[in-house]
Amino acid sequence: MAAYDDDNIFAKILRGEIPSFKVYEDDRSFAFLDIMPRSRGHTLVIPKVKATDLTDIGHDDLANLMSVVQALSPKIRDALGAEGFMIQQFNGAAAGQTVFHLHIHIIPRWEGESLKPHGTTMADKDELAETAKIVAAALAD
Amino acid sequence: MAAYDDDNIFAKILRGEIPSFKVYEDDRSFAFLDIMPRSRGHTLVIPKVKATDLTDIGHDDLANLMSVVQALSPKIRDALGAEGFMIQQFNGAAAGQTVFHLHIHIIPRWEGESLKPHGTTMADKDELAETAKIVAAALAD
Repeated sequence: MAAYDDDNIFAKILRGEIPSFKVYEDDRSFAFLDIMPRSRGHTLVIPKVKATDLTDIGHDDLANLMSVVQALSPKIRDALGAEGFMIQQFNGAAAGQTVFHLHIHIIPRWEGESLKPHGTTMADKDELAETAKIVAAALAD
Repeated sequence: MAAYDDDNIFAKILRGEIPSFKVYEDDRSFAFLDIMPRSRGHTLVIPKVKATDLTDIGHDDLANLMSVVQALSPKIRDALGAEGFMIQQFNGAAAGQTVFHLHIHIIPRWEGESLKPHGTTMADKDELAETAKIVAAALAD
């Protein structure tokens, strides 16, 4: 496993150096919309600690991250009127990981609606902003 | 969310009423091969507590389950000479969940090798048995 790169895009988002469609933040985690969503409301939850992937994070930090994923995901589902959600997480380039800061995908699902492929199509910025507003409001409750 | 059904197939596997290609077990969790693998070594990790999905498990049980997933997944990857792994978890029929006992998919990945579709093709039983033997030996270390 390669060492953590402080210049990966999610590290820059955490430092506020580049913008994101932020939907949630607390002391230890940060969540924002994937700009190449597989479905509407596709959200990434990341820990603030430096960790390249699942093999690179301590037990307590992982437990905290998963508690956040568990708390946010049904709220995201409900805010968008989705009917289910998928959790996905990639480890290693061979698994499709492209940013080497651990991130958990929360992907809302609707009956009969196929997922878009992973990481291929950039969404419309206005649509992302509108979705982020709805999701962030639901997560602030 | 529907109530937990004691007759779901994973509950029966936990009670030993139907066989599985078991690769790991401890006091609180159980792991076995998916018989419709998306790649070789596709493993399901389940908690022994009754939980239909991610929204239905306590924080401590979830933390424990994820610690097990974290411990097993790189060992499964290495035992099979894989180059990465994907974690996947489905919540609700609309998301593709078919068994309503919480389960975490560990899916080994190889560069350039596509995944088979989710839950469609039954693997050869002899191949599953051989893979289970290799993986179980690695997880027993």
